[in-house]
Amino acid sequence: MKKHSQEVEVSGHLIDSMILTKIFDKIMNREGEFEILELTVGKKKTDSSIAKLRVSGKNAKQLEEILDDIHRDGAISHNEKQVQLKKVLKNMVLPDNFYSTTNNDTWIFHHNSWTPVENQMMDKCIVVKHNRAFCVPIRDVKKGDLVVVDEIGVKVTPPQRPRDTANIFAFMGSSSSSERPTQHIAKKVAQDIVETKKNGGKIVIVGGPAIVHTGAAPAVAELIKGGFIDGILAGNALAVHDIEYATLGTSLGMYVHDATLAKRGHRNHMDTINEVFKAGSITKMVQQKKLKKGIFYQCVKNKIPFVLAGSIRDDGPLPDVITDVAVAQREYKKILKDASMVIMISTMLHSIATGNMLPSGVKVVVVDINQPTVTKLMDRGTWQALGIVSDVGAFLPLVAQEVKKLS
Amino acid sequence: MKKHSQEVEVSGHLIDSMILTKIFDKIMNREGEFEILELTVGKKKTDSSIAKLRVSGKNAKQLEEILDDIHRDGAISHNEKQVQLKKVLKNMVLPDNFYSTTNNDTWIFHHNSWTPVENQMMDKCIVVKHNRAFCVPIRDVKKGDLVVVDEIGVKVTPPQRPRDTANIFAFMGSSSSSERPTQHIAKKVAQDIVETKKNGGKIVIVGGPAIVHTGAAPAVAELIKGGFIDGILAGNALAVHDIEYATLGTSLGMYVHDATLAKRGHRNHMDTINEVFKAGSITKMVQQKKLKKGIFYQCVKNKIPFVLAGSIRDDGPLPDVITDVAVAQREYKKILKDASMVIMISTMLHSIATGNMLPSGVKVVVVDINQPTVTKLMDRGTWQALGIVSDVGAFLPLVAQEVKKLS
Amino acid sequence: MKKHSQEVEVSGHLIDSMILTKIFDKIMNREGEFEILELTVGKKKTDSSIAKLRVSGKNAKQLEEILDDIHRDGAISHNEKQVQLKKVLKNMVLPDNFYSTTNNDTWIFHHNSWTPVENQMMDKCIVVKHNRAFCVPIRDVKKGDLVVVDEIGVKVTPPQRPRDTANIFAFMGSSSSSERPTQHIAKKVAQDIVETKKNGGKIVIVGGPAIVHTGAAPAVAELIKGGFIDGILAGNALAVHDIEYATLGTSLGMYVHDATLAKRGHRNHMDTINEVFKAGSITKMVQQKKLKKGIFYQCVKNKIPFVLAGSIRDDGPLPDVITDVAVAQREYKKILKDASMVIMISTMLHSIATGNMLPSGVKVVVVDINQPTVTKLMDRGTWQALGIVSDVGAFLPLVAQEVKKLS
Amino acid sequence: MKKHSQEVEVSGHLIDSMILTKIFDKIMNREGEFEILELTVGKKKTDSSIAKLRVSGKNAKQLEEILDDIHRDGAISHNEKQVQLKKVLKNMVLPDNFYSTTNNDTWIFHHNSWTPVENQMMDKCIVVKHNRAFCVPIRDVKKGDLVVVDEIGVKVTPPQRPRDTANIFAFMGSSSSSERPTQHIAKKVAQDIVETKKNGGKIVIVGGPAIVHTGAAPAVAELIKGGFIDGILAGNALAVHDIEYATLGTSLGMYVHDATLAKRGHRNHMDTINEVFKAGSITKMVQQKKLKKGIFYQCVKNKIPFVLAGSIRDDGPLPDVITDVAVAQREYKKILKDASMVIMISTMLHSIATGNMLPSGVKVVVVDINQPTVTKLMDRGTWQALGIVSDVGAFLPLVAQEVKKLS
Repeated sequence: MKKHSQEVEVSGHLIDSMILTKIFDKIMNREGEFEILELTVGKKKTDSSIAKLRVSGKNAKQLEEILDDIHRDGAISHNEKQVQLKKVLKNMVLPDNFYSTTNNDTWIFHHNSWTPVENQMMDKCIVVKHNRAFCVPIRDVKKGDLVVVDEIGVKVTPPQRPRDTANIFAFMGSSSSSERPTQHIAKKVAQDIVETKKNGGKIVIVGGPAIVHTGAAPAVAELIKGGFIDGILAGNALAVHDIEYATLGTSLGMYVHDATLAKRGHRNHMDTINEVFKAGSITKMVQQKKLKKGIFYQCVKNKIPFVLAGSIRDDGPLPDVITDVAVAQREYKKILKDASMVIMISTMLHSIATGNMLPSGVKVVVVDINQPTVTKLMDRGTWQALGIVSDVGAFLPLVAQEVKKLS
Repeated sequence: MKKHSQEVEVSGHLIDSMILTKIFDKIMNREGEFEILELTVGKKKTDSSIAKLRVSGKNAKQLEEILDDIHRDGAISHNEKQVQLKKVLKNMVLPDNFYSTTNNDTWIFHHNSWTPVENQMMDKCIVVKHNRAFCVPIRDVKKGDLVVVDEIGVKVTPPQRPRDTANIFAFMGSSSSSERPTQHIAKKVAQDIVETKKNGGKIVIVGGPAIVHTGAAPAVAELIKGGFIDGILAGNALAVHDIEYATLGTSLGMYVHDATLAKRGHRNHMDTINEVFKAGSITKMVQQKKLKKGIFYQCVKNKIPFVLAGSIRDDGPLPDVITDVAVAQREYKKILKDASMVIMISTMLHSIATGNMLPSGVKVVVVDINQPTVTKLMDRGTWQALGIVSDVGAFLPLVAQEVKKLS
Repeated sequence: MKKHSQEVEVSGHLIDSMILTKIFDKIMNREGEFEILELTVGKKKTDSSIAKLRVSGKNAKQLEEILDDIHRDGAISHNEKQVQLKKVLKNMVLPDNFYSTTNNDTWIFHHNSWTPVENQMMDKCIVVKHNRAFCVPIRDVKKGDLVVVDEIGVKVTPPQRPRDTANIFAFMGSSSSSERPTQHIAKKVAQDIVETKKNGGKIVIVGGPAIVHTGAAPAVAELIKGGFIDGILAGNALAVHDIEYATLGTSLGMYVHDATLAKRGHRNHMDTINEVFKAGSITKMVQQKKLKKGIFYQCVKNKIPFVLAGSIRDDGPLPDVITDVAVAQREYKKILKDASMVIMISTMLHSIATGNMLPSGVKVVVVDINQPTVTKLMDRGTWQALGIVSDVGAFLPLVAQEVKKLS
Repeated sequence: MKKHSQEVEVSGHLIDSMILTKIFDKIMNREGEFEILELTVGKKKTDSSIAKLRVSGKNAKQLEEILDDIHRDGAISHNEKQVQLKKVLKNMVLPDNFYSTTNNDTWIFHHNSWTPVENQMMDKCIVVKHNRAFCVPIRDVKKGDLVVVDEIGVKVTPPQRPRDTANIFAFMGSSSSSERPTQHIAKKVAQDIVETKKNGGKIVIVGGPAIVHTGAAPAVAELIKGGFIDGILAGNALAVHDIEYATLGTSLGMYVHDATLAKRGHRNHMDTINEVFKAGSITKMVQQKKLKKGIFYQCVKNKIPFVLAGSIRDDGPLPDVITDVAVAQREYKKILKDASMVIMISTMLHSIATGNMLPSGVKVVVVDINQPTVTKLMDRGTWQALGIVSDVGAFLPLVAQEVKKLS
């Protein structure tokens, strides 16, 4: 019986970024076959490689499955074809067979040229408008939009692994072991922060309330004050705890400086929320000189934007919290635009949310004491993340110290 | 120097529920002193006890701190005094010194009688209206409402520990060890479910998407079909995964029955969301016979209410998801009203949210493979929770099997 | 039907140490009944209390079960009776019904007086010799020894909870949450170390190799050099890693100061073992000036004893390792004799081993990044342990710093 | 300045097993350079590939570092050279520069032919005797032995990844996520067990006491009875718990069938140890008909060998326990000889020990509820292990059920 086959081509750092390995892997996992028609490996580490393969399947269906799989690693049919577009007939309803995005850089072959997809995110669709292509979430799709369907004319570039060994990402790989020299890792993260800012990069922190519980709030506040942070993404809890600590010295009623319990400390949490409502907002609280230190004080003072996304478990929530999560997602994305580095601290919810919004080229550092949290994030597709299993109450002050020394 | 002192009284199962222990503990933690004026211990295990103590502090402030602390364990000043009310001057802004609630049953002494507080939840305020008292979240407080301030005239009853050894809660205490006989624990949970329903109780499940990933969705669907579940509280993810599994057989693209990857499986997740948008809602999808099995199918079919709360990490989210979390909280509370048992499965976010909304008398079972998740929930105040560290993919099918045998 | 009943008496800080609570609890768990015949509660927090109860069971067997249970919390029959002894007929074989010890302080009523049991440990038997009583492990029992059987004439004192709030143990209770102010906890542990030494106490460290991996070895070495540590209990791995780090700068081939990999670094581990064999022992290595820094260097230099217990996973093991674990247990016990504080760091195996050898009055601090490890240790009976879930690579340097400031 | 360079050659499934990727990676991590002189990639997935590279370093030292690194992935200098041997001058002291083994299949070029190293294990040396080469631990090295030094003439074959998709190892990769369909994974493990036995393979279980606590002992006993298990490696605890459960129905005093506490149950553990001492050994206990079911009963009955290695935390330990760990290691290795599959259950200590003794070609399945335990094992070099994060009390009964169905 004649086999179904197709020629594909892929280029880039095929070998050192494991791209070819993954492609061969996927073909074999689907029990397909391949023949290498041409393989030009870059002779030096900086050279790019090109491979042409003939991929075969037992039948058309199997072949299609394989091609679909390897498409996501950058393998495209040799003859470029125009991208297929289909009109949306109803708000928020996509045409069947719509193309669902990865978090890798993507191009579409449209009007005989490769057009990059803007605002790249994972699990969205691509809308083409005025010769530009945009990554758009399902809820923002409008009747009449032209949406990419199928995978013809779509090209994906898997991220090239960084080779710079001065870089925290280069030396640790994708590991998340807790058995690493903590003080050195803190130093490396600090270097990366300072370096990123020197090069004009943008750094965003995504954080949970454990920052305050464990006593790391002053370290984060200091980083903001020093000009190293360009945005804070969080939920209600981080803000309430930060302000409770800044105004009353406690976190959920426990004094952070000596771990004793405050008088009627159980009220401090709710009291803090009430104080923000009284002032009207966090910014007004700063203006009214009722909030004089801490993470959010430094944000207001230094005009660093922050977005607080509501969640079902919120107490209050604060007037600053965006309770509609669809709106909050849009605001998160604005902050994340053009970020070069994102530091995620002790919050699985906001970290996974942010991870989905980031193109795969953005550096992500995740710090959490609980290893499964770190693993889960990577499993969810943010595989470029560097996982650090440590105690944020001890780790972040070390980072802040090192940043100070370096700057 | 003369000490400041005050007589207080407390009653209930003082000794076997450790109430007296906690009170002595707190007095001593604050370096206060106490004298037992009277202690009538129930001679038999079913009897109640009464204690009168004189509590002393070095000064008025210290005494107040102590009284505030032990108030939360039910110790009240001997002479009953009228509860103090204050008018709210502005929407969502409470008077200073507002009373912040616990999750224990609470009464206020109003118009010379003890009035129970309705709709008891943690970290809320108490609004008095037409001689009734209600637990109200800060965002629902309106200008003109009368709110309880201070703790005078407020009485709290800590929950009495259950003594029924046939009960899963009685035998396990508050432990959350993974080193327990799994099959027996599954049997006990099953017995509790069956028993609760026989006695006309209401059972609510709070669940995360791991139910589907690990292959436990059919077990949950069966419990709903069997009439054992009275409500489902979840987020977008559980619904999307359940429907992806019900319609395509996969969870995030992996076939649950044999763990192979589906063709273009990465799209299944987004495809499912699109299908629900096309149908208009989950309920319509069932009516249009496009959804024919699974957790949410059984909910629609058996008229079991479900609430999906939005979160910042949602893909889509589905049209059924309430994206405004303040609204979602209200809907959650409606489902939880009068619940006798709440089973929380693999979702920290929704579990903590639900925990805050539950009076301390409601039985809570938490199942998660990650011990810190279980511990965190209890640390957050839902201390009546029974933690089961197990693999839901194996545990829930066992529970469903046992329920079937028993009914 | 007439019930079987028995009067028992218990004294001590019955209420604030929860002893009475536990006794009532156990009676009710066994579905027995009790009547309080007399209860003299200490009026002040420093007073001791006495309770007399009549305990009843449905039959003799049930009553015996109950009495056995509450015996372990200190409840004894009112009329003191002589302890029962039985002769051992064969080495290492105990008489049936031998008394199995707890880790609480124990007395036997022998020759009309209460004799304390020396060398108290958990899960051992009691041998009486020349009017003295000793806790003895089964393998050390010899033919002809007189061993205590049954529980008549045996009295157990559950540990009284400490009330000193300056103390790390007092403020944290038995919690092991990772959500605590890390820097403050490090300070408290440091204070406890300094305080214990000032009062002439003995401090023993039980440690695993993560101390070296995470970069905390210099902190531990400094504590030894400063005279704060009186003994080190470990296995082969801590010693090999410490010496690899001290001589080659690496831990399993990775430079700890900058996390780069050493040339042929994979050999460093085995090379270190070979170097110790060449020298003959760790002590000889120090004498030959081949080992000049680190934990074990400081031990040798400052004559601080250390015991390395062999385990099935050892590489080598080093000549200093006691490969026979029965012998190693005896050597561990010698070091632990009269210890006032034991600090267990990142090693479940040696921590559980040590926990079993310690009377319940000894302070135990456990530091580990993995919460289940901490929980497991407490479940195994070392319930007086204070669990700190942190990153040792960041935590121990903080402790060492604080100790330095304080001394 | 002239660079130092060297030609190397490597062959095998270079691309799909990621070997070439790793080699390029290591060269670049050391900031070396390479040129591909020749690359013959297998056209089909079953073909082998050959690569010749010229590797360059800035100086001799850097080049040597690189060559050393890539040697471990199978890259050898093109011109074969005789292996270097050196005589051991003193028992247990190796020559400097001794070759330290990996767990990959290894050959030495000796007397002009490639000789395979027998008894391959990690972190040992190679002794050559009568033209055969053996992997030998340091403590077994004798004066006069000829030991391989340096890496000249040593060839290592990294394991080829299996491609059989019916195989549990093929479909899961190296992941250890808890978010997998549990019931399906249990089925796959069962299939692998049955398949391995059909093909005449040898299966060894390495287990901890949680098997008994969680109620999985009958499942393991059944597998042994069914002839699926060829050896048990454990410590004292598994044996004591198994026999306590088999004779008294309890595990640490708790009845496994209903989780109630036995009368004087705290003694059951020590009582069991005493009963084994009375009988003389586990085998004698079976012969005396005092032990009639359970894991170790089935071992004795079916003549399945078991080895119990002592550890510092042992109670007793049982007479069958080998208290000298160096001896126990030797006995473990005998059982592991020619094993095709090793199943490690809830014991980090024995699992890591066993992992070090296994050639990298042996299939390893690790089941544990605690994800960091699974991760740690893989970090320690047993990277071929398949990690299953599940509850053994539910998982093993599923496996046993499926094995029964299949056989």
